[in-house]
Amino acid sequence: MKLVRYGKAGSEKPGLIDSQGKIRDLSDHVSDIAGAVLAPAALKKLAKLDPASLPVVRGNPRIGPCVAGTGKFICIGLNYSDHAAETGMAVPPEPVIFMKATSAIVGPNDDLLIPRGSKKTDWEVELGVVIGKTAKYVSEADALNYVAGYCTVHDVSERAFQTERSGQWTKGKSCDTFGPTGPWLVTKDEVKDPQNLAMWLKVNGKTMQDGSTKTMVYGAAFLVSYLSQFMSLQPGDIISTGTPPGVGMGMKPPLYLKAGDVVELGVEGLGSQRQEVKADI
Amino acid sequence: MKLVRYGKAGSEKPGLIDSQGKIRDLSDHVSDIAGAVLAPAALKKLAKLDPASLPVVRGNPRIGPCVAGTGKFICIGLNYSDHAAETGMAVPPEPVIFMKATSAIVGPNDDLLIPRGSKKTDWEVELGVVIGKTAKYVSEADALNYVAGYCTVHDVSERAFQTERSGQWTKGKSCDTFGPTGPWLVTKDEVKDPQNLAMWLKVNGKTMQDGSTKTMVYGAAFLVSYLSQFMSLQPGDIISTGTPPGVGMGMKPPLYLKAGDVVELGVEGLGSQRQEVKADI
Repeated sequence: MKLVRYGKAGSEKPGLIDSQGKIRDLSDHVSDIAGAVLAPAALKKLAKLDPASLPVVRGNPRIGPCVAGTGKFICIGLNYSDHAAETGMAVPPEPVIFMKATSAIVGPNDDLLIPRGSKKTDWEVELGVVIGKTAKYVSEADALNYVAGYCTVHDVSERAFQTERSGQWTKGKSCDTFGPTGPWLVTKDEVKDPQNLAMWLKVNGKTMQDGSTKTMVYGAAFLVSYLSQFMSLQPGDIISTGTPPGVGMGMKPPLYLKAGDVVELGVEGLGSQRQEVKADI
Repeated sequence: MKLVRYGKAGSEKPGLIDSQGKIRDLSDHVSDIAGAVLAPAALKKLAKLDPASLPVVRGNPRIGPCVAGTGKFICIGLNYSDHAAETGMAVPPEPVIFMKATSAIVGPNDDLLIPRGSKKTDWEVELGVVIGKTAKYVSEADALNYVAGYCTVHDVSERAFQTERSGQWTKGKSCDTFGPTGPWLVTKDEVKDPQNLAMWLKVNGKTMQDGSTKTMVYGAAFLVSYLSQFMSLQPGDIISTGTPPGVGMGMKPPLYLKAGDVVELGVEGLGSQRQEVKADI
């Protein structure tokens, strides 16, 4: 199932994508794509609905972030060996965890705002893992039972804020609009192998990132288990699992986003995003 | 006003503390101490109520975290010059920001759970600043207009997770129960000078921290303004502003919490907390 949230920011409605790619409204069945709706049994119930029986959504509504009620937006740093190399940093002996502010979450095609004072706003296409039920001290073998599904995440990053403005990366990861998420929450039954998904990102039509989750150092199941040793994970929490090579800071010379740019990105089977870059005035 | 949330975890009710220290129920006036209730005009409306007209809460209910719907739990690192010295680190040229998971938030007197595998669970009494309305790019002069009030925060910290398990502090700051918050949200009209509040912490009756917000490097107004340059702040967001000297890792030899310990802490005028330390089994 491809679950979606559509409509004005802050008042999105739940829907699913039918086999023709049309949005079908789910409002009669669930109030939102969030919380208890993400539990395995609840998703199974939704999967039994006949999409043809659901109202077609007319027009071309805005797509919101694919999941609501996200309490934690947890990111993994340097999780692709070749990306670590391009940043000049070693692959860490354990996953590097940092948090993005949940207030950074926006829809996949919303504008990407360059914060005031930013000169180094950079891109990162990532595989997002969405938690479906509370996970604490879970084993790697059991971990995917706590996952609702996957989505495309853009982990937008201000490199100067992240690394040149006194320690801790969260400062460069949390600006408003720095977390486009979606378009879809693809339930895990539709993702045969989360460790074999192509991923790509273009700036103004030029391919910048062209990778695969195959080269992730720590995979989705390991990460869910690992994180759950340090904190409980709740339904709607998103784990963004790191980015493959090709970010702007790795270019020679480095290249960063500016107002007027267009960023497009996607992960195989999870749908694509398109952001127009604007100054945050 | 001293606002409080009382009752079972997850179903707390809103209340206020009257001049006798009794809890008066606010359920007829607000659904929770959260979101729009924290806006200046809404707080003014609550302040006009006659506490004697509100139902007294009988018995001795559990006290929950003093604010609900916290989207961001932002902490400031090394924000007391003498604490920086005891950790062997320099006072940073700009505030160090990190995030605690919001799932770490608990009531002020709930059990403090030592996570599995922890050997270095440490204490930190802090002044918490609670945001009352959305703040973005606000000046220092204007910053306190976006603050609803203040509370006591215990920024519990696992030092090995924080600094010995591959970069980024959030890993040692986000464990379940690592964020006791409250007992009260004290509205800012009752806190004449947030930069002149005594603060203290005892372990098993022995004073470990005995400081004052006077020695904070970056004050509350500066921090709200500073953070708002990097991300928007929303009602219910909590900024925990750093800890004075006296943490366990600064002792010679270092001293950490173990099951059976009792931690008590408080900030002048904001109320005190008491946690029994238990193993998270």
